[in-house]
Amino acid sequence: MKLHLHQTHHTIADFEGIFKYLQEHFDTTQADGLHIFPELFLSGYPLQDLCLHRSFVKSYQKLISRINTWSTNLKNKNEKSCLLIGGIHYEFSAEQKEIPLRLTNVIYKLIPGKVLEPIYAKILLPNYDIFDEKKYFHVGEGPKILEFDQKKIGLLICEDMWHSNVHNVDPVKDLRNLGAKLDLIVNLSASPYNLHKSEKRIDRGMDISQTLGAPFVYVNRVGCEDEIIFDGGSFIVNGKELSYQCKNFSAELTTFELEAFKGPAQNKIDENIENTWESMFSPSILYPKGKLPTLNHLDDAHCKEIVEALCFGLQEYAKKSHFKKFVVALSGGMDSALVVALTKISLKPGQEIECIYMPSQFSRDLSYNLSLDMCKRLNIPLHVLPISSVHDSCRELFKSEMKTPLAGLSDENIQSRLRGLLLYARSNQSDAMVINTSNKSELAVGYSTIYGDSVGAISMLGDLFKSEIFVLARYINRHHGDMIPEEIITRPPSAELRDDQVDTDSLPPYERLDVILEAILSYRLGLHDLLELGFDRQEVERVINLYRKTEYKRAQFCPILKIKSKSFGFGYRVPICKNSNFYLEEMK
Amino acid sequence: MKLHLHQTHHTIADFEGIFKYLQEHFDTTQADGLHIFPELFLSGYPLQDLCLHRSFVKSYQKLISRINTWSTNLKNKNEKSCLLIGGIHYEFSAEQKEIPLRLTNVIYKLIPGKVLEPIYAKILLPNYDIFDEKKYFHVGEGPKILEFDQKKIGLLICEDMWHSNVHNVDPVKDLRNLGAKLDLIVNLSASPYNLHKSEKRIDRGMDISQTLGAPFVYVNRVGCEDEIIFDGGSFIVNGKELSYQCKNFSAELTTFELEAFKGPAQNKIDENIENTWESMFSPSILYPKGKLPTLNHLDDAHCKEIVEALCFGLQEYAKKSHFKKFVVALSGGMDSALVVALTKISLKPGQEIECIYMPSQFSRDLSYNLSLDMCKRLNIPLHVLPISSVHDSCRELFKSEMKTPLAGLSDENIQSRLRGLLLYARSNQSDAMVINTSNKSELAVGYSTIYGDSVGAISMLGDLFKSEIFVLARYINRHHGDMIPEEIITRPPSAELRDDQVDTDSLPPYERLDVILEAILSYRLGLHDLLELGFDRQEVERVINLYRKTEYKRAQFCPILKIKSKSFGFGYRVPICKNSNFYLEEMK
Repeated sequence: MKLHLHQTHHTIADFEGIFKYLQEHFDTTQADGLHIFPELFLSGYPLQDLCLHRSFVKSYQKLISRINTWSTNLKNKNEKSCLLIGGIHYEFSAEQKEIPLRLTNVIYKLIPGKVLEPIYAKILLPNYDIFDEKKYFHVGEGPKILEFDQKKIGLLICEDMWHSNVHNVDPVKDLRNLGAKLDLIVNLSASPYNLHKSEKRIDRGMDISQTLGAPFVYVNRVGCEDEIIFDGGSFIVNGKELSYQCKNFSAELTTFELEAFKGPAQNKIDENIENTWESMFSPSILYPKGKLPTLNHLDDAHCKEIVEALCFGLQEYAKKSHFKKFVVALSGGMDSALVVALTKISLKPGQEIECIYMPSQFSRDLSYNLSLDMCKRLNIPLHVLPISSVHDSCRELFKSEMKTPLAGLSDENIQSRLRGLLLYARSNQSDAMVINTSNKSELAVGYSTIYGDSVGAISMLGDLFKSEIFVLARYINRHHGDMIPEEIITRPPSAELRDDQVDTDSLPPYERLDVILEAILSYRLGLHDLLELGFDRQEVERVINLYRKTEYKRAQFCPILKIKSKSFGFGYRVPICKNSNFYLEEMK
Repeated sequence: MKLHLHQTHHTIADFEGIFKYLQEHFDTTQADGLHIFPELFLSGYPLQDLCLHRSFVKSYQKLISRINTWSTNLKNKNEKSCLLIGGIHYEFSAEQKEIPLRLTNVIYKLIPGKVLEPIYAKILLPNYDIFDEKKYFHVGEGPKILEFDQKKIGLLICEDMWHSNVHNVDPVKDLRNLGAKLDLIVNLSASPYNLHKSEKRIDRGMDISQTLGAPFVYVNRVGCEDEIIFDGGSFIVNGKELSYQCKNFSAELTTFELEAFKGPAQNKIDENIENTWESMFSPSILYPKGKLPTLNHLDDAHCKEIVEALCFGLQEYAKKSHFKKFVVALSGGMDSALVVALTKISLKPGQEIECIYMPSQFSRDLSYNLSLDMCKRLNIPLHVLPISSVHDSCRELFKSEMKTPLAGLSDENIQSRLRGLLLYARSNQSDAMVINTSNKSELAVGYSTIYGDSVGAISMLGDLFKSEIFVLARYINRHHGDMIPEEIITRPPSAELRDDQVDTDSLPPYERLDVILEAILSYRLGLHDLLELGFDRQEVERVINLYRKTEYKRAQFCPILKIKSKSFGFGYRVPICKNSNFYLEEMK
């Protein structure tokens, strides 16, 4: 039997494009064998509230009808071809026929010539982090084995393969308990990307293949929905062997001959798994003996993957928002330089990027020289908009009308907000998309000005700690030709909002700050845990104080391209207002 | 038996305050009878991810230990007193003792002298709209009847009383099926406020009282967590009689003698309920015969409630963020005037409000005169910061450095953003909290400038359509002394970003726009439905086009005080990027 892996790439609710894909591939002939599509191929994912809007439901139901009509009218009808397609199955109110009462996340079987038939509903609905599936879907009723071409095929949808203590049931075990000798297991997925995830999927696929004694096929979608990247990376494993893996971040159709199981079998399922989602997917901090913990180092393979993911995510957002130009505020510092380099790498024919350098009285000549150097290297236009004159007008206004001159924080912030304002004026003028330049460390401690340097349509670096940004910059210089002037990487980070300001005036060095932040955010460690790891009490308390008081800034931040298992954004849900003493008082 | 309703008001995670409350009320004597507290009294609600953070878990577990120690050491121990307290019950990993594996939302029983004993876990976990309970809690295992003082008491937690098709089980029916003759039903709640909700709770309480043949006691918390207001309004019903209702928006402790059931009994439970959450709680549009639908009119009682809710919500945010000053950009238009009036009504001793009027070349003298008139009436300082000079500096900068003068949209938006910038400069200078002035109609069609007039710490009017804002303004003038100059209410709404601009240049009149928006947002109606209701195709298409293209603005908006069943904010989840043709193409 032939296996066809349809690693597809469609926008949410692109019903026309989805139908055309089916037409293109099955209109005239239908290749023999099993065609496997991603989870929710027919609708896109994640849909959030869209799946309940009547207009969406109507259009989706029309797509279903259209596919059924098309299939039954096909001239060539090939019963040796079987499509397994992910989609929503709606059940409606008997009285109010347009109001959906129940949604399930299903696999449709489609034999060319027949109609779509829902044959399996997803059992494990993820509802942690960014996932909200229990908000919309009802739980499927049990395991299912499809018989096709004299083969027994076990069905799974995405999370069904990930048993953990978050869930009470284990669909893989339930499949085995059906007692049949399986020839194949398929998993239709819409699985968000994060660093290291592909390896975890393959490892788990091998486990399942060995446990159930059959090859395992995993088909994932490609795309980026706001902050959530889908990387594809579909694969086939047979026992402990990786037979094939599709590309990341692009559509692919691959055909593969189903092989017999290659063993070794692994009969035991660990019944005592005590996994939480965090223990399966959380990133890891390294604990060198007798030293302070450090972040896991990003090697070249990781950096390559991150560059691909970020460039892909940016381009997805731009395409869907119909932008062909990008504009970045280049400061002469590391973050904006990396954003410009990444954007330049991502550029497609017909696209442009321009930079704006907006010096104040506190900006050093070096910042301009480095910005200019960078733009020359990359052949990008650099506009210079000194903010001093507008800043002076603001100061004048406050002095004359408010009788209190701007000073201290109000005078510092106004510089950052003027830059945000001028950047958006240019965006309006040139129809260019503003890319945000904040990093995860800044976001975590609120080291940014709301409506100032925090503006943008999307954040490329909001899931990377500052220390990782340096690693990525060096990787880019090694592998993409020296895009970033060396001195941008080596000079001490500064917001340049007052004379001789450097980040370490108010923050611990990034190599320590970032570990503390990762511990708080991903591991949910507290003060006590951090002191036990050897961190300095004063330093940790300073970081926690900055973190706990700045939720309001993160609450109004733009979408962040998610490349880690724990990120700020939709999956990070922390009240702005609360009594936050527990962060510091737990030891009393 | 005496019933003590503890309608409490604590901040999330205020473990100290929560413990003190117990000490104050039970340290020396414990009044006989049943003391009923709100759902999750011990932790606060909603906690979101906080409930998984190790520091939170440790501090919470310390609170539990502290209560147990305190109770067992009490000098007076009264076994005729029984406390029913809402809280989280954590179960931990056997291997990693600090990692919670399972959380349930429970009722603890506390007999003074003994320790906290979890006796019932919530069965219906709401996971729609703003609710995320399935993200954190495991489902309780079944109904429970507590025996105390020779009475049989049926236990429910909040959503347990609301059976609908969203859920598969009905805890009220399950309680009845236990077959016992109940003397009382208690419901511990943390139920968010929205307009009309109190009546629905009481109606449903009466249903349950009649169905189960016993008085029904409902205890709700008071507070506002970011956008979510908890109104209290705890009550006792007996059959069809409302025996007592607590105040809204403030803490209260009320004692009541338990009465025998007063009937009539109502033995039948409607087994064929086809409620969706929307059909239970959605607001309603009026359909006058032969005319276009209109929004439900807000009467004086509704307006009074809304004023209380908004003032309460604002003050909660200010208190928790430690602000004693407020600053509002007064434009001479309706929205900012209403925000100022509401804020003035809400002011507490020691608090101040100031207004800033920021005219441009397009501002009419009338706008200034009306702003001044309003501030004089309310005795509020008015600062005038003309933006022309700074605006000119920006224009000059673009002309000289960018070689392209600012014009059209880029020149209009810069005015709005300059106002946002100056407002925040003043906020930084005077440590005043900026209150946003956008309304729900503007938010829905994106009729605002991101980082401009959309800025603020919290939005007071973001859940009120423009047509409702006029009704509220007139109510305030009738009942709080003419706070708002009449001409602010009667002049045509305008953003004053160019000469002679009025809102109706680009938007349908608000009385039609608002119904269309409510239909799309709360009823999830589409183009076809709206045309059937008699709306004009061109007008509806214009509104839908504005709505579907402006998710990016709503995604970065500040928290909105939620006073309706469907609101923008945390419970509104729509992807920014998608193929949105379905909104318009459904009829093809």
